[in-house]
Amino acid sequence: MPPRVAVFGAAGFTGALTARLLYTHPSFELTALTARTEVGRRLDDIYPYHRVPIALEELDLDRHGDLGAAVVAYPHGASAPLVAQLRERGVRVVDLSADFRLRDPAVYELWYRDHAAPELLAEAVYGLPERYRETIAAADLVANPGCYPTAAVLALAPLARAGVIKDVVIDAKSGVSGAGRAPSDKTHFVTVDENISAYGVPRHRHTPEIEQELEALGASVRVTFTPHLLPLDQGELVSCYVTPEAELGEDDLDRLYGEAYADEPFVEVVASPPGVRDVRETNFCRVSVHRDPRTGRVIVFATIDNLWKGAASQAVQNLNLMFGLPEGEGIT
Amino acid sequence: MPPRVAVFGAAGFTGALTARLLYTHPSFELTALTARTEVGRRLDDIYPYHRVPIALEELDLDRHGDLGAAVVAYPHGASAPLVAQLRERGVRVVDLSADFRLRDPAVYELWYRDHAAPELLAEAVYGLPERYRETIAAADLVANPGCYPTAAVLALAPLARAGVIKDVVIDAKSGVSGAGRAPSDKTHFVTVDENISAYGVPRHRHTPEIEQELEALGASVRVTFTPHLLPLDQGELVSCYVTPEAELGEDDLDRLYGEAYADEPFVEVVASPPGVRDVRETNFCRVSVHRDPRTGRVIVFATIDNLWKGAASQAVQNLNLMFGLPEGEGIT
Amino acid sequence: MPPRVAVFGAAGFTGALTARLLYTHPSFELTALTARTEVGRRLDDIYPYHRVPIALEELDLDRHGDLGAAVVAYPHGASAPLVAQLRERGVRVVDLSADFRLRDPAVYELWYRDHAAPELLAEAVYGLPERYRETIAAADLVANPGCYPTAAVLALAPLARAGVIKDVVIDAKSGVSGAGRAPSDKTHFVTVDENISAYGVPRHRHTPEIEQELEALGASVRVTFTPHLLPLDQGELVSCYVTPEAELGEDDLDRLYGEAYADEPFVEVVASPPGVRDVRETNFCRVSVHRDPRTGRVIVFATIDNLWKGAASQAVQNLNLMFGLPEGEGIT
Amino acid sequence: MPPRVAVFGAAGFTGALTARLLYTHPSFELTALTARTEVGRRLDDIYPYHRVPIALEELDLDRHGDLGAAVVAYPHGASAPLVAQLRERGVRVVDLSADFRLRDPAVYELWYRDHAAPELLAEAVYGLPERYRETIAAADLVANPGCYPTAAVLALAPLARAGVIKDVVIDAKSGVSGAGRAPSDKTHFVTVDENISAYGVPRHRHTPEIEQELEALGASVRVTFTPHLLPLDQGELVSCYVTPEAELGEDDLDRLYGEAYADEPFVEVVASPPGVRDVRETNFCRVSVHRDPRTGRVIVFATIDNLWKGAASQAVQNLNLMFGLPEGEGIT
Repeated sequence: MPPRVAVFGAAGFTGALTARLLYTHPSFELTALTARTEVGRRLDDIYPYHRVPIALEELDLDRHGDLGAAVVAYPHGASAPLVAQLRERGVRVVDLSADFRLRDPAVYELWYRDHAAPELLAEAVYGLPERYRETIAAADLVANPGCYPTAAVLALAPLARAGVIKDVVIDAKSGVSGAGRAPSDKTHFVTVDENISAYGVPRHRHTPEIEQELEALGASVRVTFTPHLLPLDQGELVSCYVTPEAELGEDDLDRLYGEAYADEPFVEVVASPPGVRDVRETNFCRVSVHRDPRTGRVIVFATIDNLWKGAASQAVQNLNLMFGLPEGEGIT
Repeated sequence: MPPRVAVFGAAGFTGALTARLLYTHPSFELTALTARTEVGRRLDDIYPYHRVPIALEELDLDRHGDLGAAVVAYPHGASAPLVAQLRERGVRVVDLSADFRLRDPAVYELWYRDHAAPELLAEAVYGLPERYRETIAAADLVANPGCYPTAAVLALAPLARAGVIKDVVIDAKSGVSGAGRAPSDKTHFVTVDENISAYGVPRHRHTPEIEQELEALGASVRVTFTPHLLPLDQGELVSCYVTPEAELGEDDLDRLYGEAYADEPFVEVVASPPGVRDVRETNFCRVSVHRDPRTGRVIVFATIDNLWKGAASQAVQNLNLMFGLPEGEGIT
Repeated sequence: MPPRVAVFGAAGFTGALTARLLYTHPSFELTALTARTEVGRRLDDIYPYHRVPIALEELDLDRHGDLGAAVVAYPHGASAPLVAQLRERGVRVVDLSADFRLRDPAVYELWYRDHAAPELLAEAVYGLPERYRETIAAADLVANPGCYPTAAVLALAPLARAGVIKDVVIDAKSGVSGAGRAPSDKTHFVTVDENISAYGVPRHRHTPEIEQELEALGASVRVTFTPHLLPLDQGELVSCYVTPEAELGEDDLDRLYGEAYADEPFVEVVASPPGVRDVRETNFCRVSVHRDPRTGRVIVFATIDNLWKGAASQAVQNLNLMFGLPEGEGIT
Repeated sequence: MPPRVAVFGAAGFTGALTARLLYTHPSFELTALTARTEVGRRLDDIYPYHRVPIALEELDLDRHGDLGAAVVAYPHGASAPLVAQLRERGVRVVDLSADFRLRDPAVYELWYRDHAAPELLAEAVYGLPERYRETIAAADLVANPGCYPTAAVLALAPLARAGVIKDVVIDAKSGVSGAGRAPSDKTHFVTVDENISAYGVPRHRHTPEIEQELEALGASVRVTFTPHLLPLDQGELVSCYVTPEAELGEDDLDRLYGEAYADEPFVEVVASPPGVRDVRETNFCRVSVHRDPRTGRVIVFATIDNLWKGAASQAVQNLNLMFGLPEGEGIT
């Protein structure tokens, strides 16, 4: 019998897409969708294109039955208490919020707010399969990475591991779905259309998450990270400008990236700068690395679909690992 | 001394654009901008590209000083009471709402709501300069037309006047700015992007306004009118499918449209179907007329910028007429 | 052993998407892709997002091996000679061009050009599965419908069959991919962006195809058909304005559409006007029917993805039928 | 009598916009438009929205009459020979190409090609009015800056002049009009829509131009410059990441930018990161400067309309200076 899973917070963009991927997944049974608003509405009424004919329920852990796993798609801060409840009941959790991504609660509290369940941090595993595949498989609580950290860490991991990053600037660009479903001036069509601007300057909350993961790879570096909002729906590109510790040739770069990703099913190393359309509606991350011979700087581009590899399909990838299923099941 | 004008309701798209046009207008002095929210905020903070360095005030007719004229950009229903107050003080008004467009209060109440100032309907002039230029010049209260009626009536007037319209289908397409500034699911970038759908089916409120004006031209016809929301900011196209009373040749059509618009400064008759970009950020309406030899049907396209000729610049065109100024001053 | 299939003309948008669908199809083996330009280039170099790692070859029927079936994605006129060659070799063909859609060669020659293989018209089956499912299953030559006719015929079939269409106006809107891959002023981003305009006025070539299929359903009517180009990539909406022979109630309409499509796996009848995003990258056609109580007119909207149900996935749907496979295999 | 001007190469985006600005300019008389293709076509046929009712002619310097000035909008390399001919006839020239921007012909030949008129380099003035206002006024040959250098130099000039730039990364984003009017895969709507990618990596030709101007300001630095193509029409944003020579406080930055631009009519220093819409269809450059307290890095954003301040309106600004006219005439 397939594991029963629920998605908590399924009315938002990432929760809804996770619901769709689990609804059509051959090895999970999607048993409940909850939301804090629009209870009673069917998901295919809100998102016709997801075609999930299940109504949103109010949260009531006693009523959702025995769950093998849950995906929590709550906002930062609201997530931790629900995750704690689920863990008490023995439910394995993939959490899409930032609440369990930062291993040091002091860093979390500096960038976010008081932590509601710091006792769970020790067991939480950072859910980037390309980095922590084995640990994820054994984990009961997986903190799904932020979209920018997913792209940035995959872009920089080969250099970080090689110990060659002296300094790095990450200029990121994201489609509007990354700003979430809540209507606002910021997400109004007329604001975004024919426009681009930076936001979160100079302190975007994904910064410490990127630094944590680069440090775990051996690169102790303060990153400059600036995201921009693009007039498109789904897609994210990070352009990383690395000042290397020492001169690196193109052969060195090719070797580092080739070795790092030769066997990765969802990372594609390509020769030309990738476009976000190359990975739209997929779990792929596409990476290219370049060397500026004039400055010696290394330029790495990585692109993902912010809702897929940056959130929902990566959550399913993690669930697959946790349940011993083929890593790409239901997301290819 | 130039007439002093105020814009009431300047935080919305059309009010703000009217403010910009009046701010740079050589023959009006823009003295006050009011809004019901965001009081105290400067307009150039909300709309950097309009570059109007004036703060939004609360409505207080005693404080705005002697006004020669006012533009009211309030929602339907909210507008009539303010217009009544302004008229009591002798202020000449261009009203952007629907409140004074329909001459028959019963029709207004059928499509909208109870009318708050029906006693003013008699003096209100429908502000389509190409139709009512002389009356507008003498009017104290001008009801600025809806965006769809502006395009539809300019498209169909030559045929209506000639008495040849037996039946007409109007398929309209509008950019998102027509939906207003209020953030909602409907105006969220992710909803609109890469999408198109019809709305207001089968009863959009601009229908009786179009029928009223066609009837005034001699065409007593029930129109089928269906608008669609487009993934673009500003611009509106109406595609009108006319079943003629009798066979019309291309020469007849060319003559009718040529005569109607030869001297109109803001109507351009062209040979090929126009695009909304042709008139973006202008007061122009661009029209083309075609005959389908297989069916005898006449097809007329008309395109305007919904915020300009469909609202703000037409309001200024009306103000120019009311104050004896060159009709195109400040809007060309 | 799965049937071996080739796609001829795989460098264009529809050919390339067909190639992708067949490449991942569980029951076909994609053995060759040809193109008239870019020979030697791999398809995943031209279309990274299709991820088909097969190089384009020159056409050489002797070299492509024994084929069970072929999809021909050539331009109108160029297709017929190749189809004739393939049929001589006994290869079953789905042809994406217009060459075999019109049963009367005189009509074809009136709207297109001289026909290169009129002798094949008798055996060609119009590939709209919802209409000709059984005949398609037995056919050796299937003429895949045009994108507009697919949407228009599915929109109007229930009314046509009921004999209630007196007159119809079809106002269609399509994304730019419908204009094909050839770069031109017309498809330049700057031309299309923030724009919409009609084209093919008043004689678009899909008109006789729509009329032929409505007539086959019992509705002998001259349609007025006008397409518009939208600033979006994939998607197509037809808005159909039907003057009925007699008064039709909403119940009548609901019954007609319910009966027609209750068992159709790829037609969704919905209550609200659909958006093209609802069916993006799917084989679905989504239809809604409305009645304007003021005019008695019936308004039907139908939306498809022009590259999918309007071309490539419908071709695969036809192939599935021809080879006795589940109709939705490889396209759901 | 107003100076007579011609635009050579008026069929492209920048030439056509220059033509429009000069056609409506109160103090110039636009007497001729030439093009190398589409001779005989009227400009308002190609660009309806520019409304310039002048036909394109073949180049024939003997026939265009006495010119006071000319704007040359030819491609790099093709421009120099025509400029040389014009200068021989005593015509004052603003050249939109790169041919006279780089003062050192060796640098030009390294990044472009052989130079056809190196003897004119000495008299050419780099046409960035905010830098060379007085010299431009006296010049006979003005090299209009590239769009990226315009934005980048205005972004960085206050820091360069203060001698505090140790290193700089410039991540630039541009709308598609920057790629020119020639249809290609790269400018096809389907390629660009819902996409973003870097191009010209790692050696874009605007790099030496930026370095030349930073050096002239006192900053001898090798810049890393990477442009990206955005799914929008007009607009350009540069995000500059500066490693300062020494710690800079926010007060220092505010003072530097305030002093530099307080009196500049077309540079707006703002507090929040600007969007490209803020300057669409204007000659403004909008700049904001930020300090990342964690890294000490200085982040500067600058946005322009690539066709206006990045090309055509800056050309007119230069012409105004050259002819002693108010600097903003015809472009505000």
